[in-house]
Amino acid sequence: MLLEAIEHRPKGNWVSASGPGTVELRLRTKRDDVREVSVLFGDKYAWDRTKAVQPMRKFASDALFDYWQAFVTPPFRRLRYAFRIDDGQTAVWMTEFGFEADLPANPQNLFEFPYVNPCDIFEPPAWVKDAVFYQIFPERFANGDPTNDPEGTQPWGGEPTPSNFFGGDLQGVIDHLDYLSELGVTAIYFTPVFEAPTNHKYDTRDYLKVDPHFGTNEKLKELVDACHARGIRVLLDAVFNHAGRTFPPFQDCLEKGEASRYADWFHVREWPLDVKDGIPTYETFAFERNMPKFNTENPEVQEYLLGVARYWIEEVGIDGWRLDVANEVDHRFWRRFRDTVKAAKPDAYILGEIWHDALPWLQGDQFDAVMNYPFTTAVLDFFVERKLDARGFADRLGRLLAAYPTRATEVAFNLLGSHDTPRLLTLCGGNAALMKLAALVQFTFIGTPCLYYGDEIGLTGGHDPGCRKCMEWDPARQNRDLLAFYRWLIALRRGAEALRTGDFRVLRAEAGEKVFAYMRSAGQERYAIVVNNQDQPASVRLALGEGTWTDVRTRETADTPGGAAEIALEPFGFRVLHATVG
Amino acid sequence: MLLEAIEHRPKGNWVSASGPGTVELRLRTKRDDVREVSVLFGDKYAWDRTKAVQPMRKFASDALFDYWQAFVTPPFRRLRYAFRIDDGQTAVWMTEFGFEADLPANPQNLFEFPYVNPCDIFEPPAWVKDAVFYQIFPERFANGDPTNDPEGTQPWGGEPTPSNFFGGDLQGVIDHLDYLSELGVTAIYFTPVFEAPTNHKYDTRDYLKVDPHFGTNEKLKELVDACHARGIRVLLDAVFNHAGRTFPPFQDCLEKGEASRYADWFHVREWPLDVKDGIPTYETFAFERNMPKFNTENPEVQEYLLGVARYWIEEVGIDGWRLDVANEVDHRFWRRFRDTVKAAKPDAYILGEIWHDALPWLQGDQFDAVMNYPFTTAVLDFFVERKLDARGFADRLGRLLAAYPTRATEVAFNLLGSHDTPRLLTLCGGNAALMKLAALVQFTFIGTPCLYYGDEIGLTGGHDPGCRKCMEWDPARQNRDLLAFYRWLIALRRGAEALRTGDFRVLRAEAGEKVFAYMRSAGQERYAIVVNNQDQPASVRLALGEGTWTDVRTRETADTPGGAAEIALEPFGFRVLHATVG
Repeated sequence: MLLEAIEHRPKGNWVSASGPGTVELRLRTKRDDVREVSVLFGDKYAWDRTKAVQPMRKFASDALFDYWQAFVTPPFRRLRYAFRIDDGQTAVWMTEFGFEADLPANPQNLFEFPYVNPCDIFEPPAWVKDAVFYQIFPERFANGDPTNDPEGTQPWGGEPTPSNFFGGDLQGVIDHLDYLSELGVTAIYFTPVFEAPTNHKYDTRDYLKVDPHFGTNEKLKELVDACHARGIRVLLDAVFNHAGRTFPPFQDCLEKGEASRYADWFHVREWPLDVKDGIPTYETFAFERNMPKFNTENPEVQEYLLGVARYWIEEVGIDGWRLDVANEVDHRFWRRFRDTVKAAKPDAYILGEIWHDALPWLQGDQFDAVMNYPFTTAVLDFFVERKLDARGFADRLGRLLAAYPTRATEVAFNLLGSHDTPRLLTLCGGNAALMKLAALVQFTFIGTPCLYYGDEIGLTGGHDPGCRKCMEWDPARQNRDLLAFYRWLIALRRGAEALRTGDFRVLRAEAGEKVFAYMRSAGQERYAIVVNNQDQPASVRLALGEGTWTDVRTRETADTPGGAAEIALEPFGFRVLHATVG
Repeated sequence: MLLEAIEHRPKGNWVSASGPGTVELRLRTKRDDVREVSVLFGDKYAWDRTKAVQPMRKFASDALFDYWQAFVTPPFRRLRYAFRIDDGQTAVWMTEFGFEADLPANPQNLFEFPYVNPCDIFEPPAWVKDAVFYQIFPERFANGDPTNDPEGTQPWGGEPTPSNFFGGDLQGVIDHLDYLSELGVTAIYFTPVFEAPTNHKYDTRDYLKVDPHFGTNEKLKELVDACHARGIRVLLDAVFNHAGRTFPPFQDCLEKGEASRYADWFHVREWPLDVKDGIPTYETFAFERNMPKFNTENPEVQEYLLGVARYWIEEVGIDGWRLDVANEVDHRFWRRFRDTVKAAKPDAYILGEIWHDALPWLQGDQFDAVMNYPFTTAVLDFFVERKLDARGFADRLGRLLAAYPTRATEVAFNLLGSHDTPRLLTLCGGNAALMKLAALVQFTFIGTPCLYYGDEIGLTGGHDPGCRKCMEWDPARQNRDLLAFYRWLIALRRGAEALRTGDFRVLRAEAGEKVFAYMRSAGQERYAIVVNNQDQPASVRLALGEGTWTDVRTRETADTPGGAAEIALEPFGFRVLHATVG
């Protein structure tokens, strides 16, 4: 048994309260090194009376490790515990003091999770794990009101540049809600809609006013109400890391320098505000002089931004916030932000833009989820970059499952592209069949999928600004097959709890191969998903287990003698099989 | 190279802002497996212009692992980084995505510490790492005012029981401040002084009133002022996990049941308040019916307790709080507590009672330190339980150094006993020489030492109530040699920055041996500490390095040809050598 590989620490992803009475415990061992893990647990003040043993389940594996999990219910909210790890030949106990052959005589030496206090429990809104998101870049979705077009608006469908405008607006979204309903999405994430000079509006001028080229505050309310009437929730983009150059308090600093009453609203290294050798004398987003970073330690700034967060929930009824550049803002601010938002709307969703490991923000006190770019990268590395074989891809997915507590993984915001990345179809070299495989994994994995507007009808484009083309509304120019596929995929996910929150288990992921198969299961429902990530046909044998397995597209029953099926796949083909067991 | 042993995650003990511009990075490798580790780091928005390489230092080792550390200064507060790990034969890069032979072409895949926001920096008060604490259990330190003795007070020096009284009070402490000054301590931690029925007073009746048997609020102010005049800081005990049975709001609940306006101040599972089969129908400390647990999620309770925290700082001028049963109270409450306390006194010290791994409370948002019982256990396992050899002890100390960021380790509250444990001398079987070895390690290790009243004059006693004997003030009955030793030890530590915050390095810790030696160093100062943990003499050869080495007790110069010394030790003997180098 490789002791150096075994990891647990009483915090973070390793132990978390996952409900009023339940604690999720996790342990890591070297891959394929250990046969059985169990947890001994009880109340520290009544140890002998309450101690009990529970087996742990291997719930994920990656290149180096297996990960084990148990959900335990301490009898009096207080948890003392130790792990017993057995490789079939020897067994060791792991406690806070390390490894021992025998359980320490003094139970004081075991691990502790001292008390499950309800207010410390990570509790994302219940609706999120069932949601299907659609991301809209408002300037490019639809022009529903030409009267509000900016000067110099170009004809719809032209080539996007960093600075041009095409007239998209909120009325345009309202006009196409039928389309979204038919597509089946249940939530929209809008990139910024507040007044700002650029087409992307990440350089806010007025946080309390919808950009006049998009409409009015009343129009936004009309849009939100119309969405709600269809069961669609609305998320807006909170650009609270930085303001725009035209934001009046920053303008005041530009004019009055250090004497400005807003001088402390920003992080100024040296007055007057200037740019020297390409480096602003004040903190900014990146080195972008037009995006001065807020001093979110200043109570005035906090009150201002928290007021904004509250305003749009109370006045317009939005269902949550996506937080731009969330990891560069201080944790203290986000804690106040969470309190403010949840007080205004208890089931509001708080989604941080973090491209990296985000555990410090997912402890229950800050965000409900982050944009899961590590998932994006794993999927693209398999299907697009072709750096991974099936085994490597399975390992990367396993690593993701192990990274956060289950409650956080269930609401991870799984995207395959956004306004900040090249379009998925473009990355796939225009191969829609390949794109479908990536999308199939996205919509049948644990976490909340988000579709970037237009991907579903075959919009293409490289890096920003290429990925911000106008939506194509002419059916003749839409990829109708792809659209039908996405409709089917969304309906499939929405109709199957197993695909949303069910367990995930790899069925086949061999080194050197390109066929990848996995099972999702919840209660009596089973789904087997198989993708053939290559330009040649393949046939694989899968141990599906008991039940009558049906292809969910063809409705054909699979032949599964002894619970095993021989699955034939076309080049870049896939299969989704379903069974109800028991 | 054993990849499974290598650990880093961009959070917690692995990465932490340790100053306005500095970030501490840590990495773990298998013990003796790796020759060199370096970190590549820079600004993510100006990677090519700013990237730089810095070597990491192996700063600690335990039974299985080596731990590496670097303090880096990102040029623009934003940190992107990767590790290069070299075992002399091969080298690998570690990034957020795992291990690779070559640095990934896309620097996006590296680790990130997104932004050093000043308000998120863990910043314990500067004075704590230089302090020497003395813990007083007021009922047993000195009776300075017989007029306030409780009814039935027993003669000073009698046998303590769970419920008897001896008349100790605040005037008694005032009367003996000269003693404490001569001893050399710079801070006192008082167990509870507020009105409560028991002798230990962990069952508070009135949080805003000094117990009449101890004195008055004015007397406490007089005591604090007198301490401050001598440069002694004062810490009080905040029993905020639970109240006492006689606390009026709980009395109100006992009387009025669910109709009480304080019904939500506690966690009541079932009305009326009762005890069934030994289990109270309300949450308590342990199963102690007289200690009802506060509902610290109730805003009224928060305001009340935070008011108490503020009151004693503002009215009496105390320098901080020790928090009883700190890990069973919710994190949200402690965050508000920290804000309140630091607003009232920016350099107030917040010390949590946590017996276990306490990283979740040491992130900068809650406590400054915790009572370091894992240190206690390591020292006792070596000197008292005799479960460890020198190597095992060194490994346990190494594990402690690796557990928390350096800033937290420097202010860890290192104790060898308290009102909750048997007396050190008793554990040592009355062997004062052995006790001295344990104390020597305590006072020359990283972290703030705390001496439990009376240990220094040879007070004995087993578990509570034995460890709560009356202080012995008759010089004839004090162990004057032990007292002289503690005075010397405290002066030694206070006079040497190297012993407080210097680097720690093991000089000798062999398997099967009982001689343990280590070096502390800061700037040009070096201290070598050697202990002989056995009842027979020993002689060891130590590579001390350059410099003229002097025994700090005898002032004799050691013979160190080639930088090595032959050190002779008596049974349970020790040596402290000093050199100034360069």
